[in-house]
Formats: sequence, C-alpha cells, structure tokens
Amino acid sequence: MKEVAIGIDIGGTNTVFGIVDKKGNCIIKNSISTDAYDDAKLYVKDLCISIIETIKLTDEDFEIKGIGLGAPNGNYYKGTIEFAPNLKFKGIIPLVDMIKNQLEYPVIILTNDANAAAIGEMIYGGAKDMKNFIMITLGTGVGSGIIVNGELVYGHDGFAGEIGHTIVDPNGRMCGCGRKGCLETYASAPGIKRTVFELLANLNEPSELRDVSCNDLSAKMIDNAALNGDKIALESFEFTGKILGLKLADAIAHTSPEAIFLFGGLAQAGDLIFKPTLYYMEKNLLNIFKNKVKLLPSQLEGSDAAILGASALVWKELDSVS
Amino acid sequence: MKEVAIGIDIGGTNTVFGIVDKKGNCIIKNSISTDAYDDAKLYVKDLCISIIETIKLTDEDFEIKGIGLGAPNGNYYKGTIEFAPNLKFKGIIPLVDMIKNQLEYPVIILTNDANAAAIGEMIYGGAKDMKNFIMITLGTGVGSGIIVNGELVYGHDGFAGEIGHTIVDPNGRMCGCGRKGCLETYASAPGIKRTVFELLANLNEPSELRDVSCNDLSAKMIDNAALNGDKIALESFEFTGKILGLKLADAIAHTSPEAIFLFGGLAQAGDLIFKPTLYYMEKNLLNIFKNKVKLLPSQLEGSDAAILGASALVWKELDSVS
Repeated sequence: MKEVAIGIDIGGTNTVFGIVDKKGNCIIKNSISTDAYDDAKLYVKDLCISIIETIKLTDEDFEIKGIGLGAPNGNYYKGTIEFAPNLKFKGIIPLVDMIKNQLEYPVIILTNDANAAAIGEMIYGGAKDMKNFIMITLGTGVGSGIIVNGELVYGHDGFAGEIGHTIVDPNGRMCGCGRKGCLETYASAPGIKRTVFELLANLNEPSELRDVSCNDLSAKMIDNAALNGDKIALESFEFTGKILGLKLADAIAHTSPEAIFLFGGLAQAGDLIFKPTLYYMEKNLLNIFKNKVKLLPSQLEGSDAAILGASALVWKELDSVS
Repeated sequence: MKEVAIGIDIGGTNTVFGIVDKKGNCIIKNSISTDAYDDAKLYVKDLCISIIETIKLTDEDFEIKGIGLGAPNGNYYKGTIEFAPNLKFKGIIPLVDMIKNQLEYPVIILTNDANAAAIGEMIYGGAKDMKNFIMITLGTGVGSGIIVNGELVYGHDGFAGEIGHTIVDPNGRMCGCGRKGCLETYASAPGIKRTVFELLANLNEPSELRDVSCNDLSAKMIDNAALNGDKIALESFEFTGKILGLKLADAIAHTSPEAIFLFGGLAQAGDLIFKPTLYYMEKNLLNIFKNKVKLLPSQLEGSDAAILGASALVWKELDSVS
C-alpha cells in the first residue's frame, strides 16, 4: 500500500487539504470553509467528514501515516490554536485532540503555516540537503520558520520563529498585532501597498498607481506597474527590499543559516524583490557572514504549497521518532 | 581519580586558564600574556608548557578529560580563530590542531567566549534545567550564545549567535565591526559611555560626569554616579535598557527562550540595567511572548566565570558524545 500523509492548511477563509505521497505529489485535494463556522467543534466534525469522503473518492488503497496541520498561531507542543486573530474560533482551541476524537492515525500534528512551509521545503523542496536555513513567508502577513541542526526551532513555548514581528521602527506603522513598526507592516503584500501610498504622498513622480484607491490596490498591480517601469512601483520594491534585507541580516546574526527561502505572493515578484533584498541583506551583514548565505525562492511554490508544507510535518515527525 | 576539565579563556591582553571539576570548582588557575606574542605557534607552545607546569603545582592526581577554549571569533566546527579584531594573530589560526600537537587529551574544543558562557550557565549555573535560553554578555563588546533544545546554535558556519551585531539603527553609532548602529555600540561598557556623552551634549542637567574626560570615564563611574542619583547617569542606564530591551524582544521572536541571562561588567549594575531592560523588552514583545521570558543575572559571575564557561565545553561535548 502506498504510504501517504494528509496535509491540512487552515486559513481565515478556507481550509484546504490533500493526500500527499512521500515525494510531494498531491494525489487529491479538497476544501471546506473556515469562516462559515463560529463553533470549532462543528468545524472539526465537518472537516473530518470531508477528509473521509475525499479519501473515498480515490480508487487507491492508502496507508495513511498521519495528518499534518498548518494553522495561524498553531502550537506544536500543545496541539492548540491560541488566540489566532484571523480565525473566528476564539481563545485556545485544542485542535489536535479534537481531531484525534474523530480520526485515528498514528501521527496528528500541528504547527503554524510558516513552520509547516519550512518543513515542506526540507522534505520536498530546495532545502533537502540543508540543516540550517530560514523560511520567510511573504503573504498577507510575514511568517517564518527557522531550522537549526535539521530541526525546526519551536522554542520554550512552541511559538518561536516570529521574524515578521521583529521591530523595524518602534515608532513605525501600526501592526495588526497591536504594536508599531513590525517587519510585517513593510514586507507583506499589505505592507508594500502602504509603501506605495507613502511614496505617492512623498514624491511627485507620475504613476499609474495614482489612479487606484487604497482598497483597490493589489500587490499584483504594483508588480505589473513595476514591470512597466513605473517609478513609484519600482521604488516601493526597492524600499521593501531595504527593510527586509536589514531584518534578514539580523536573523542571520542569530542562527547563521546556509540559506533563506522566500515564499508566498510577494516572493513571486522575482528579481523585483530578490535583488534589493539581497543587496541590503549583504550591506547589513557582519563581515563573517558576508557572501555566504543564499537567498532563494521556495521550491514549494504553487497552489499546493500550503498542503505540501502541512503534510511534510508527518514525514518529519515519523523520521524524528524512528 | 578526580575527573577535571581545563578551561582556557583567550582575551586580547591575557589568556587565563584553570582546572575545573564537574561541579564547577576551579581547583587551580594561572595565566599567560596573549598580546606579548605576535607568533601564534610560540604562543601555543608557551601556553601548553604553562598548563603542564600548573597541573604539576597541585598534589592531586587528575583524570583530565579535555580542554575547552573560549576565544574571540572562535569557530566550533573548524577549531580555528578567524580574523579576530582584538588579537595580534591575523588570519585563520588552527588553534585546536596546534594544541593537539602538544597535548593529548580526549577532547580539545573551541568556541567564542559568549558561547562558552552559555554552556557554562547550562552546566554549572542558572540554566541547569533549561533547554531554551539566551546568554548575553555585556562587556567591552556584546556577545551572545543561543541554546535551542539543549544545544548551542552554531549555525551553518559555526558563527551563529552574534546578537551584539544586530542593527539598532543603520545610521547609528560607528561600530568596531565597520558598520553602523550595532547593538554593541549601545549596550556594551563603551556603549554606555557613548550614551553618557550624548546625554551630556543634549541635556542641561548638572552631573558629576561633566568633570570626567571621555578617556577617563568608566562604566563603574557611571554606575556610582547613578547610585548617587546623578540624572545623566540614571538616564544613560534607562536609554541602554531601552535599546537592549528592544533587541532582546527581537531575539525572543526568533528562538522563544525560557530565559535570557545577562553576564559581564554592565550586568553587575543590577536593577539599574535590569529594570529598564525588562520594561522595554516586555513593551516590545509580541503578545504571545509577554510575561513569559525571565531576564536573569548569570550565576557564573565572578573572577572565574570565563574559565568555567570554557571548561564546561568539555563536559557538554562528552555528554553529547555518550
């Protein structure tokens, strides 16, 4: 029987899941709404039903080794989701225990989405031969997963790896976390939008982005404008790379990784984001770290990336146990 | 026979070493000059001779399990000192191999002084029961050693844990490393001196420190002035704690430690430095980390601290191997 793992990515709007083999092929996938549920119990019940039905849709006989879950504020040690600002489930949700009550698999394991992406990169992606690297996810927020000696850093409480909430400027932009000036307010998709509006305010350059409202503006539009040579758009990537590069240099001073992977929407802007980020990362690095650390695009990109990351938790756990 | 380890701390001026038992008692110690030697070979030869002579001075029969060395820019993986700015030995010095040619012990191992202090804290000090903590050394420079899952983080190249060279302000004070605005330029003993002079320039408060030249001013004088209620001195501690607290909050977002230990001269100022540092650390912490992380004085303080730290490397290595 083919050994597979189920990867589940819990987002604020939808929960997507899939059955993934050891090579990272997503055999079948499905999704349910997350935000249709106020009650976590009902959500878990329906999620488990949907998983079982989805498995039945395939003809293959699988040996399901376990479930890996990526969720905002997911706690690896406790199997809980704790005070996730983007989920309707409030407080502490004992998600792993709730699933265990419905489904019996050898491994059921949870962490946050960026940590799952890091483990995905190590199991299926560009970090297969790496023991020390950092995954940075540039999406609606900025997440990170730090790998040291081949293991994910969970820290004392299970919440390590919040590089998106390191502080660029204590008097800077308001962050969703309640503080000011977090990296996330600059280097996320909403962050680069904020930068565009700051530049539109400060500079006189003509720009196609002057016709777009704050609510209508998307990171993709900024990307397209930059490819058209729009100076405001180009400058917004330069500024984003400057801030991100500075904070990546700080991150390197902590754990000295072999590589940093960029993952998510903003990372797909390619050279527009990679070039300034690498330049300012190198510029701000302590001498002993210069020209050593690779800045790479995630090899997990694509519509299944989040499912792959979550499923990889299962293989990693089985590997650690054996 | 009593099992002992030799701890050697290599400083820019002197090299101190001692024979230490498993409980952290320094049985005998000695030192040789470091800066009297331009030639690393001659230095190592004289150091090894001095070690052998020092062992003979005791009546006890020891089983020497190994040598642990703490040195600036010491590389754990390679056993080298690489481009240490404060040592006369230039380039890459294969220190461990050079000692192995003179002395035959099961373990001969090297890392930087802050990493050695972290392992010392774990073996003999206040972190005996901790698996995740950070050691910050506040001396002439600011060093750090990061422990994750009970292991020191060496990173891909052996140089991880340079929190003293994370950047507070890219346009800030000139650092000895050639960049600007490193934490070290604010939170070291020279850093607080610089802060005093900045405050003397900016404020009109009377201060006993207005009578002291830049070269004459010591961190101890600032400490004494603060204890006398001198407003400039008090404000200099407040400012130092503000910067240090901010960067410790960033460090916590990386590896989520159970505790952060402060070690070295500046840490001995007690509440003067601990109170503002803790206040600003908490103020800048992401919600999930608030009121969780202890800020503690190192339990290794005292004249033998550096020797103890270095010797602890041996016990840690033997423990990892067995």
